[in-house]
Amino acid sequence: MITNEDGLVIPTLDDMLEAHERIKPYIHRTPVMTSRFLNELAGCEMFFKCENFQKAGAFKVRGASNAVFGLSEEEAKNGVCTHSSGNHALSLSYAAGRRGIPCNVVMPYSAPEAKKAAVRGYGGIITECQPSTTSREEVFAKVQAETGGDFVHPYNDPRVIAGQATCSREFLEQMEEIGVKPDMVVAPIGGGGMISGTCLTLSNLAPDVKIYAAEPVNADDAARSFKAGHIIADDAPDTVADGLKVPLKDLTWHFVSNYVTDILTATEEEIIEAMKLTWTHMKIVIEPSCAVPLAVILKNKEVFAGKKVGVIITGGNVDLDKLPWN
Amino acid sequence: MITNEDGLVIPTLDDMLEAHERIKPYIHRTPVMTSRFLNELAGCEMFFKCENFQKAGAFKVRGASNAVFGLSEEEAKNGVCTHSSGNHALSLSYAAGRRGIPCNVVMPYSAPEAKKAAVRGYGGIITECQPSTTSREEVFAKVQAETGGDFVHPYNDPRVIAGQATCSREFLEQMEEIGVKPDMVVAPIGGGGMISGTCLTLSNLAPDVKIYAAEPVNADDAARSFKAGHIIADDAPDTVADGLKVPLKDLTWHFVSNYVTDILTATEEEIIEAMKLTWTHMKIVIEPSCAVPLAVILKNKEVFAGKKVGVIITGGNVDLDKLPWN
Repeated sequence: MITNEDGLVIPTLDDMLEAHERIKPYIHRTPVMTSRFLNELAGCEMFFKCENFQKAGAFKVRGASNAVFGLSEEEAKNGVCTHSSGNHALSLSYAAGRRGIPCNVVMPYSAPEAKKAAVRGYGGIITECQPSTTSREEVFAKVQAETGGDFVHPYNDPRVIAGQATCSREFLEQMEEIGVKPDMVVAPIGGGGMISGTCLTLSNLAPDVKIYAAEPVNADDAARSFKAGHIIADDAPDTVADGLKVPLKDLTWHFVSNYVTDILTATEEEIIEAMKLTWTHMKIVIEPSCAVPLAVILKNKEVFAGKKVGVIITGGNVDLDKLPWN
Repeated sequence: MITNEDGLVIPTLDDMLEAHERIKPYIHRTPVMTSRFLNELAGCEMFFKCENFQKAGAFKVRGASNAVFGLSEEEAKNGVCTHSSGNHALSLSYAAGRRGIPCNVVMPYSAPEAKKAAVRGYGGIITECQPSTTSREEVFAKVQAETGGDFVHPYNDPRVIAGQATCSREFLEQMEEIGVKPDMVVAPIGGGGMISGTCLTLSNLAPDVKIYAAEPVNADDAARSFKAGHIIADDAPDTVADGLKVPLKDLTWHFVSNYVTDILTATEEEIIEAMKLTWTHMKIVIEPSCAVPLAVILKNKEVFAGKKVGVIITGGNVDLDKLPWN
């Protein structure tokens, strides 16, 4: 870690490499998949890094495991706690369960039932809040004070970003194995944890690879922040992409503002269509949130035409009883 | 091929090996996946051979490609034709398209829209019939007379069975690569093409591996045939497992009656539950038909307890707008 002039603690390449060694026993090396049909539709060659097959069903297990297994015995004694719209909650519960320490999570009552059930399945304890950033932070302050657990922020934490960064390292290795050099990588952006990890790894190991973030129009605070040059936070945006409702924070803003080429947005209809296309043609279950990259690729074909494009499929935790097209 | 005393032309191990060489350019070597969650639930160790990731979305492309690419120029000149509830139709259309010959298919009007759209996408020409075996065979006789195409039966054809048999060969190779010896394999049974291919390969290459067939209670003609010792055919069974409505024929009966250990059945509710479990925990899109093996495993735990069980996931072509739990 290095501390910059603003006092921000920033993870480095070494932190990512250490994280990867630390978390390997607890994560999958997820596959990279392709689809001839979707390539023809998009006019570019896409390589999908399938974190929907990750432990706990999402990439977030990387950052959560790095935080949990990096704690000393003393630091771990009261367990961990967090707030999360879903996947970080269940990833932290999974990691804490593997280490045998308690995990308290604050989740909006509106989070998908599948995610809540998975948190409980891993032994996590849920306290519900309203689906707004304000309520989430208020309720969380109470839970943290009561439990004394180590706070693992879902994204604005250098340990978490170092963990998420291992995803792009695997991706680069896997592309090298098949002898393909990617031109760009597209990942969804909510709070910016995955994008920050992607920036950390690519800016060090493959600085020529451009990084695009994909965001719902209905929760486009990161895109507006990017244009304005400073963080703009919405309190309670409403989108089918339930994982992308949270705002950027100082640490993720550092990475986004320094390393991202552009933030592209897609409408709810475009996201749902991209989700159905992925389910239909790739035969994989993905969340609405990770359909946003395909949606923006299909919408901005000129940006990606003829390129080799990495696409991070961030998770696969969906309520089958509440699919967005039903 | 050998011809038995009843005049039945039966594919041999050599036919399977030849088929595998012939079709390799046109098929995927699909992955074998596992799920710790489902293993714990079932009390056995399952290895899912994921033919939902196969070209055209189903194992049937193996048999169809073997038939199409095994034709001489002369035999291929009027193209091919068939009747099918869906996956064979689109697989034959795919293979014919790759060879550049016409493909005519008779499909029940009630077949999933996703399957009909895929047939058309591959250039196949559809003639619709009623959803009964009688209607299907009547309409098909006309189409065949008009087009003069080579008839590739969806399962009662030695070329098709030799093609489907390549799936189990890959499975055995993949299990050897991970150093696991399977105790049994479970595959769904409709007309019996996949099961017959499985019998062909395993009886030759791994005769210790038991073969179980899985069938919907609502279309249990194979289970009743198995008990009775002769083929019993239903005309128009109704089940959510749309790929499993057709009856056994003489060639598939040969394999089923000689090599299958047992045929187990599951109710509609059990099939839908197994389908949802697979989608939720494995993050893969599978058809109702290929949820039947998991359904019978969960229902007959004593048969599979502690065993290493191969499970053939036969296809992933589903109408997302008509999911059976909505």
